[in-house]
Amino acid sequence: MTTLGARLVHVAPGEVDLAFDARPDLLQQNGYLHAGVVAAVADSANGYAAFTLAPPGTDVLAVEFKINLLAPARAASFVARGRVLRAGRTLTVCRADVWGLDGPAEALVATMQSTILVRPLRA
Amino acid sequence: MTTLGARLVHVAPGEVDLAFDARPDLLQQNGYLHAGVVAAVADSANGYAAFTLAPPGTDVLAVEFKINLLAPARAASFVARGRVLRAGRTLTVCRADVWGLDGPAEALVATMQSTILVRPLRA
Amino acid sequence: MTTLGARLVHVAPGEVDLAFDARPDLLQQNGYLHAGVVAAVADSANGYAAFTLAPPGTDVLAVEFKINLLAPARAASFVARGRVLRAGRTLTVCRADVWGLDGPAEALVATMQSTILVRPLRA
Amino acid sequence: MTTLGARLVHVAPGEVDLAFDARPDLLQQNGYLHAGVVAAVADSANGYAAFTLAPPGTDVLAVEFKINLLAPARAASFVARGRVLRAGRTLTVCRADVWGLDGPAEALVATMQSTILVRPLRA
Repeated sequence: MTTLGARLVHVAPGEVDLAFDARPDLLQQNGYLHAGVVAAVADSANGYAAFTLAPPGTDVLAVEFKINLLAPARAASFVARGRVLRAGRTLTVCRADVWGLDGPAEALVATMQSTILVRPLRA
Repeated sequence: MTTLGARLVHVAPGEVDLAFDARPDLLQQNGYLHAGVVAAVADSANGYAAFTLAPPGTDVLAVEFKINLLAPARAASFVARGRVLRAGRTLTVCRADVWGLDGPAEALVATMQSTILVRPLRA
Repeated sequence: MTTLGARLVHVAPGEVDLAFDARPDLLQQNGYLHAGVVAAVADSANGYAAFTLAPPGTDVLAVEFKINLLAPARAASFVARGRVLRAGRTLTVCRADVWGLDGPAEALVATMQSTILVRPLRA
Repeated sequence: MTTLGARLVHVAPGEVDLAFDARPDLLQQNGYLHAGVVAAVADSANGYAAFTLAPPGTDVLAVEFKINLLAPARAASFVARGRVLRAGRTLTVCRADVWGLDGPAEALVATMQSTILVRPLRA
């Protein structure tokens, strides 16, 4: 997340928002944010959201995710909002919506569903 | 792909392989390649594979993908093999397998299914 | 949907709810609703929701979906709520949440993301 | 699977094939097999394939799957080939390809990626 310049802007039980800006090195040939960047930040928002509900002594690891890219990611800045849909002992399921921010307007640019493994920390 | 250091190592109709190396800035806290990096390269391999079969005057755009992260991505180098499963006039479906390379051994670390829109180039 | 006994209980632009009951022939060996049934109804709710926003003279066709099964589907009845996230000229993206209903309580049992093709009706 | 008339036609470690026929009550308004039926059989093929590699005393349960519907399912009969991509202690990942059979010709109509939980049987 440091590489992508993402900032933690909201944390609550089962909820994490990550904000990040469009940077020249993160854009595709057409001037939009690369899908891989959108996916990486959404994946992190979901992982952190899952971690807020993970029992002490456990770690979280994404085992799969699916993302729909709904609209070109051409805003100046973005926020990925990760939310836990169900927290389990072994598996937690999260959804992240990624919004493009252009002044006061928000546009949904992507949505991700993630399955996250909760596992004991190794000694 | 330049940012990630990915290299085109195989191109044929409906087939593209991208090779890339583990680099310190692409690793997670545990020393494995970040899932976002794996996803970004697999997404690109699928997009390029779709493009090899796209009619002249068209462009391709991933509309969604799903990735299963099968094993920790801890090899020194990797190859993402994108293959077209079905090429259509409007939509092309691809699969990419990402392999970790450790000497002569290969281990499957991730597999992705992608839906790609084929659309006329804008003038 | 007739085979599964699903009933249209809500229709609005971009929104369709389908209700259905657990029936002995739809259950798995453990007494829960079969995942295939949950997926079939969620897929239909999303398809119908997409159709409410499709232009005249077009038809809709699901090209892919992904479903997370969040909890055992062991209620007496269920509702699948399909919602359009983005309606496009060629592709519409929907989400369906499937809730189990046990008296006044609702429990989220599954969530689906679907990509739906909007195409001209054949003459 | 009984309801859908599916038959087990191949079983090996990590591999299960299920065959089934198009039946009038399984078709959509356009005469093709319903996506929900295709998904239900592919989900079962993957679940059974995972079970062939599950340790004694465990059961398997699909936690999510994603399916791409590649072509209209208009053959007279079909086979869903479920294969384990990775068998783990807690999670097994499978892929199923569904083929339409028209005489000697086979056409790929759908492909599914599934994540399957392996869990101890309850007493």
